[in-house]
Amino acid sequence: MAEVSPLAPKRFPRLPNVAGVELAAGACGIKPSMRSDLMAAVLAPGSKVAGVFTLSATAGPTVRWCREAVKGGAVRAIVVNSGNANVFTGRAGARDVAATVKKTAGILGCSAHDVLVSATGVIGERLPIAKITNALDGLIAQAKPGNWQEAANAIRTTDTFPKGAGAVARIGGVPVHIAGIAKGSGMIAPNMATMLAYVFTDAKLPVPVLRRLLKETCDRSFNAITVDSDTSTSDTLLLVATGAGKAHRRITRAGDPALKDFRAKLEAVMADLAQQIVADGEGATKFITVNVTGAASDRAAKAIAMTVANSPLVKTAIAGEDANWGRIVMAVGKAGEKIDAERLTIRVGGVRITERGAARAGYREAPVARHMKGRRINVDIGAGVKGGRGRATVWTCDLTHGYISINADYRS
Amino acid sequence: MAEVSPLAPKRFPRLPNVAGVELAAGACGIKPSMRSDLMAAVLAPGSKVAGVFTLSATAGPTVRWCREAVKGGAVRAIVVNSGNANVFTGRAGARDVAATVKKTAGILGCSAHDVLVSATGVIGERLPIAKITNALDGLIAQAKPGNWQEAANAIRTTDTFPKGAGAVARIGGVPVHIAGIAKGSGMIAPNMATMLAYVFTDAKLPVPVLRRLLKETCDRSFNAITVDSDTSTSDTLLLVATGAGKAHRRITRAGDPALKDFRAKLEAVMADLAQQIVADGEGATKFITVNVTGAASDRAAKAIAMTVANSPLVKTAIAGEDANWGRIVMAVGKAGEKIDAERLTIRVGGVRITERGAARAGYREAPVARHMKGRRINVDIGAGVKGGRGRATVWTCDLTHGYISINADYRS
Repeated sequence: MAEVSPLAPKRFPRLPNVAGVELAAGACGIKPSMRSDLMAAVLAPGSKVAGVFTLSATAGPTVRWCREAVKGGAVRAIVVNSGNANVFTGRAGARDVAATVKKTAGILGCSAHDVLVSATGVIGERLPIAKITNALDGLIAQAKPGNWQEAANAIRTTDTFPKGAGAVARIGGVPVHIAGIAKGSGMIAPNMATMLAYVFTDAKLPVPVLRRLLKETCDRSFNAITVDSDTSTSDTLLLVATGAGKAHRRITRAGDPALKDFRAKLEAVMADLAQQIVADGEGATKFITVNVTGAASDRAAKAIAMTVANSPLVKTAIAGEDANWGRIVMAVGKAGEKIDAERLTIRVGGVRITERGAARAGYREAPVARHMKGRRINVDIGAGVKGGRGRATVWTCDLTHGYISINADYRS
Repeated sequence: MAEVSPLAPKRFPRLPNVAGVELAAGACGIKPSMRSDLMAAVLAPGSKVAGVFTLSATAGPTVRWCREAVKGGAVRAIVVNSGNANVFTGRAGARDVAATVKKTAGILGCSAHDVLVSATGVIGERLPIAKITNALDGLIAQAKPGNWQEAANAIRTTDTFPKGAGAVARIGGVPVHIAGIAKGSGMIAPNMATMLAYVFTDAKLPVPVLRRLLKETCDRSFNAITVDSDTSTSDTLLLVATGAGKAHRRITRAGDPALKDFRAKLEAVMADLAQQIVADGEGATKFITVNVTGAASDRAAKAIAMTVANSPLVKTAIAGEDANWGRIVMAVGKAGEKIDAERLTIRVGGVRITERGAARAGYREAPVARHMKGRRINVDIGAGVKGGRGRATVWTCDLTHGYISINADYRS
């Protein structure tokens, strides 16, 4: 196995209890290593859910099931296996999802549509479904509050550390709790959501409010990261509100000013989880923040930032600690968005490099070279569009020999 | 330096003389290694030219000059330096292009607009222009017919072998000659043209015919390759017709049936050059052909093929000789084009793998694994769109430790 990413947090964070959420994890035998590979979140009656999913045209049956099931907005359980993505498995794959849902709904005495299912791992191999259905009774019986780290471990594939984040927010003065877990390391270029992430709160929020908050915060967190430009077939992000916490002021619309703190904390939790996925990017040794301002629109800024963040030549230069800013110029140029090359500004580590379409007079590479030796690399780009106020921030990692080693020998 | 690519042709091909084309090459001192870094093609009076160039928004002054200069359609010289791309060099860079053009036009006694200039190498560093202008008299004096290999050598950067291709075609029974040279190895995802390529013929063809032939054949050659998804700031493809060969039937339109053989041979020469660039892809050990059929349109087919060809996970799987076809499913899914997952067919090395949205009953991996051990990997994808006749072929290479080594330490 790969060693733990040098960008990993020192330890799994202390996460708050979220009233109405109980978690269980265990090894049902999908991973040959017998490592933990099955997770269930059991949610209090009345819990509400919103979800976003991969836009892949080859999405698997778990994603297809969830897309339908979240329409109702109610949820009682989320069951996730790792070690096998159950993607491109034909009708058998869809039957396997139905079997998991039916078994779980039977145990909890709820409707099938209240059970959401995810899977992550190798594509194109039939799921050993009996291992899951046989394990579910025992697993769900063990579910308990606060079991975040075990749950985060059970959804890992090539991840080198479990990912969690949490916060306490106030709604009208009343404390509510937010906690989430995620997994992801390669095949990360989320398109509407990322690999797998589950965020829970005990606030009481109606489904339309949840959906709106999810979309807003997702665009600035999971939809703002990339590891390798490859979009998974299984990307799933669910936001669950149990409503089982302390009673707070009634919320009926996403625009309610009482949600200000909650919205900020939710975004912080989601950005933290998304950044942990980048910090665990396959082979990553540098965490890179690409910040674009002065573009024609926020959309254009994000397209430029993503093009830079996905450029193999930019990512390998950073891996080599080479202050080769010409590759940033190249990547900005190929983005297909309006820029003004004469007014384009590039800063690395806060040092301004360019001016009037060329290197700045007196530009010295030494301070940039020093910044490149660090773990956290900051690239700031001013697109230079007259009157342009578009801005975006994207997070990525470098491209190293480690990525090649992991992926040239993943399945075998 | 890197060793010669394992995918390189055994030797530089024998190319025909093209009447009206004389070539010179030498070392003017831009490359610190004193390797050959300056090339001039001197063309007979009356030569016509068509060109396509990078769409990069940070294209350099050579490309900006050529875009204007080719509008007239006449050409007397092409001057190319390697070792420095003269990109993002501000007004000084544009003055350096003007100096090269003026000096060359003076030597040949032609209009400035008849001189085209290219540059390739590092981005963002001022060109040592005196080295070029001082060398031009001596260089142009040495120009001679048939000097293809020396010219191809002088335009190399990270290329591990010189690239040339040629053919003899017949127009109305009269033999005419085609020969071209190209360079490129990394930063290859051409958008309208590729790194640098120059194709010459001694046929007599008017400018509108040249332009039409160039666009048609470019789309199925240079615009159908990718090494690393990064588009150069300097991509330039020029097609020159000197009209200095044997007199042939007069051609006034691209649709003339007498051009059938010429068009086919021209496309073959351009595809050969483009494929040599892929065979010299940085770190490449496998030459990959991605063929897509049954898509909604040719454009959609090409988008799917390019998405597969640019997927780091597909390319690393092939580098590892891993028959991991699930990654092809993933890449097809993220292309954003219409497919029918139930009818999607994937073949590797001619072996059909998928059926009805899953692995085929009785699929055996052994023959695919054997194919993966070869140098030439064939991936055939049927998109399965009902009534879809869109098709495209794209060429690429694998993604290996060699790519990382070359690019994490290129400039230093």
